[in-house]
Amino acid sequence: MLLPKLRAQVLEANLDLVRKGLVLSTFGNVSGVARDEGLIVIKPSGVPYDEMKPEHLVVTDLHGKVVEGSLRPSSDLPTHAVLYRAFSSIGGVAHTHSEYATAWAQARKSIPCLGTTHADFFHGAIPVTQPMSDEAIAGDYEANTGTAIIDALNGLDPVAVPAVLVANHGPFAWGRDALQAAENAWILEAVARVAYFTLDIHPLASGVSASLLDRHFYRKHGKTAYYGQVRAEE
Amino acid sequence: MLLPKLRAQVLEANLDLVRKGLVLSTFGNVSGVARDEGLIVIKPSGVPYDEMKPEHLVVTDLHGKVVEGSLRPSSDLPTHAVLYRAFSSIGGVAHTHSEYATAWAQARKSIPCLGTTHADFFHGAIPVTQPMSDEAIAGDYEANTGTAIIDALNGLDPVAVPAVLVANHGPFAWGRDALQAAENAWILEAVARVAYFTLDIHPLASGVSASLLDRHFYRKHGKTAYYGQVRAEE
Amino acid sequence: MLLPKLRAQVLEANLDLVRKGLVLSTFGNVSGVARDEGLIVIKPSGVPYDEMKPEHLVVTDLHGKVVEGSLRPSSDLPTHAVLYRAFSSIGGVAHTHSEYATAWAQARKSIPCLGTTHADFFHGAIPVTQPMSDEAIAGDYEANTGTAIIDALNGLDPVAVPAVLVANHGPFAWGRDALQAAENAWILEAVARVAYFTLDIHPLASGVSASLLDRHFYRKHGKTAYYGQVRAEE
Amino acid sequence: MLLPKLRAQVLEANLDLVRKGLVLSTFGNVSGVARDEGLIVIKPSGVPYDEMKPEHLVVTDLHGKVVEGSLRPSSDLPTHAVLYRAFSSIGGVAHTHSEYATAWAQARKSIPCLGTTHADFFHGAIPVTQPMSDEAIAGDYEANTGTAIIDALNGLDPVAVPAVLVANHGPFAWGRDALQAAENAWILEAVARVAYFTLDIHPLASGVSASLLDRHFYRKHGKTAYYGQVRAEE
Repeated sequence: MLLPKLRAQVLEANLDLVRKGLVLSTFGNVSGVARDEGLIVIKPSGVPYDEMKPEHLVVTDLHGKVVEGSLRPSSDLPTHAVLYRAFSSIGGVAHTHSEYATAWAQARKSIPCLGTTHADFFHGAIPVTQPMSDEAIAGDYEANTGTAIIDALNGLDPVAVPAVLVANHGPFAWGRDALQAAENAWILEAVARVAYFTLDIHPLASGVSASLLDRHFYRKHGKTAYYGQVRAEE
Repeated sequence: MLLPKLRAQVLEANLDLVRKGLVLSTFGNVSGVARDEGLIVIKPSGVPYDEMKPEHLVVTDLHGKVVEGSLRPSSDLPTHAVLYRAFSSIGGVAHTHSEYATAWAQARKSIPCLGTTHADFFHGAIPVTQPMSDEAIAGDYEANTGTAIIDALNGLDPVAVPAVLVANHGPFAWGRDALQAAENAWILEAVARVAYFTLDIHPLASGVSASLLDRHFYRKHGKTAYYGQVRAEE
Repeated sequence: MLLPKLRAQVLEANLDLVRKGLVLSTFGNVSGVARDEGLIVIKPSGVPYDEMKPEHLVVTDLHGKVVEGSLRPSSDLPTHAVLYRAFSSIGGVAHTHSEYATAWAQARKSIPCLGTTHADFFHGAIPVTQPMSDEAIAGDYEANTGTAIIDALNGLDPVAVPAVLVANHGPFAWGRDALQAAENAWILEAVARVAYFTLDIHPLASGVSASLLDRHFYRKHGKTAYYGQVRAEE
Repeated sequence: MLLPKLRAQVLEANLDLVRKGLVLSTFGNVSGVARDEGLIVIKPSGVPYDEMKPEHLVVTDLHGKVVEGSLRPSSDLPTHAVLYRAFSSIGGVAHTHSEYATAWAQARKSIPCLGTTHADFFHGAIPVTQPMSDEAIAGDYEANTGTAIIDALNGLDPVAVPAVLVANHGPFAWGRDALQAAENAWILEAVARVAYFTLDIHPLASGVSASLLDRHFYRKHGKTAYYGQVRAEE
């Protein structure tokens, strides 16, 4: 069996989504990538989470061609593959239908950076994609979803803004590996929820200043990080 | 004892409502139908869920006449019976007072299709019934509730739109069997909740395009389905 | 020890509040009355719920004078006593700071009857008290709270409307015994929550018609009840 | 090992935050102070709560200099230290990113006293700090956060108003020891949540009168307290 460690990690990340209440039914999927081998490990499509084992995961190449596995991969695989090909700095991708992040996606609104919880993880607003054209939907829909995510980032560093909301659909998040992708999906949901409450209390809430955004983001990321017990790696 | 397998399935579907937090106290009820025998199996009225056993369920004909069982059937039985007679394609009906779906029902608003989670299960808005007249309420109230549901569907395929909100009351959902009816009631609540959040974020959110609605609904339903491990059956 | 059965029931009802998430910290209290003996059994003040035993409960007369018990009774005892003296038809009183009912109380708004869940338990809107005068607050505050509740009912049958919101404070509910009082406090919270969501979806939601209100209330209460397995007793 | 009892209490208070759902991931921190020794015990930075043991806690002097411990202290230590030096009446400080209190902080709105739950614990509105200047953020940021909290109290007794919201960040609460600080952080979240619901129901809700505020606060605090089994100590 190829990539047993990565399979175990990707399974764990998928189960993390369930434990943290981010997925409904069999929705949601996490993948991880082995850069040296050029292989993706992803959740199978529509298999109940409580029956999922490492051998159920599917191994594909970076274009989504199945290399190992008897089950169908998640139908969102082409979106993951597009992101791995576009962003060499990421090692895992997580997709959920978590409720508040999905509400922002359905509202087609980016999530403004209103506080330090957001700034600790995301260096600025969480972008939302443009609605897809009928042609893009009728065509290679899942791959085109990946392209819409890249367009929404608009040149931003995917490590600094590790999530995008897909309009009328839901969030995709990523990270250095599958576990961090799942963690970012979790933090994103919390950020989306508190942003919702904030704007309900005060629709004109003005968000963090540029200096507060930088202070918090760089307190946890980069060479000058001083949060936690070890220097942050990226 | 008649229909032991169907009794077990209907009991399980009723308990599903409890596990998923869709019912309050003894509210809520699920039934299943045996088409060949022309018999309905339904929850008894007002019995605590944690004491319910297969033999407590009540078997009736399609007009709600008790065929087997010493307990009274759910007081909503006539609504279920009307739906089974009208929709030959359904095998189970679930009624809950789940909170967000009930709020939409109390607001007498249909739930617009704002995203793909909705489109994966419901091919368009979830309709709401017209308020019942004093005559309909004073008459065969529960059967008239069934008629109001049929009217609200307004000719739509009940398989494509497997739920309706009863105005000032709560949701009824259905499916190919009791378990899928309970599942649809569960997804409906999630859809109702996220739609509520969405319109709070952006009251003018415009919903999915016709092509996105079709893409997602037919990704999971019909001959061209490609989600999950087996071809969807309907 | 006086009234061991009533003590056990009142303790159980107090623990019900905790299990159903209706109380915060040591807040909340339930009492029961023994009409023949003219005695109230009530929770002690400020004792953690998980340490509470039947012998900790306090027995008082209908004017709140302690008859048995070494601990102080709940500081809200005088409110309970006023209600027992005014409403001979009730056997239990429950007070919580449950979140949505408290929000309505803080907003000084009665909860309109917007659906059948409400109508199944409460025959009309849940009233809210007038704010208390400085004199009433400075005087026998807890007894005056009971008077404000009676005034808010304004002659309505306390069996038909078994709860009132105390302005800027929280809900009091009652029933034929302590357990039903706790149950009504629980249903009230659900009703308050769904009413909140409903008016957020549609601020002008118009509520149930008089005939729907009667149909549901009398489906569960009175001589013509047909819900559940036995004829309702009141 | 210095201060074993205080370490145990501070650890317990930190775990309280987790049990009560007030922290996300490794966020949040509680400290306690030993006034005679002039020492602070605080949570280490970025250590998972479920692995935390008393020996992981860090002991510092009142200026935040580490006296004992091999791990880095919480990055918010300087804020705690400023509060201990300014308020001799407090013995514990708790910081969370609890969701509703954080939403009020992100909205830069103080929480008005809308009901008796609030008045039982906080003698008036929960203040919010002014946004920090770029200079304050670029400088000794965490210590300046403490100064902003002191400024927001504006001379109020920290025992009477044991919490402040830090603008665009989240709440700090305190108390006579670490456990009461954590309890106040918990009550604050409940108060923030119900205040949010209240103003959603009625944006012009006018809050408690001065006499009701005093009645409830002094029912639980000070020489005339009559809630609970023993006279309140402060």
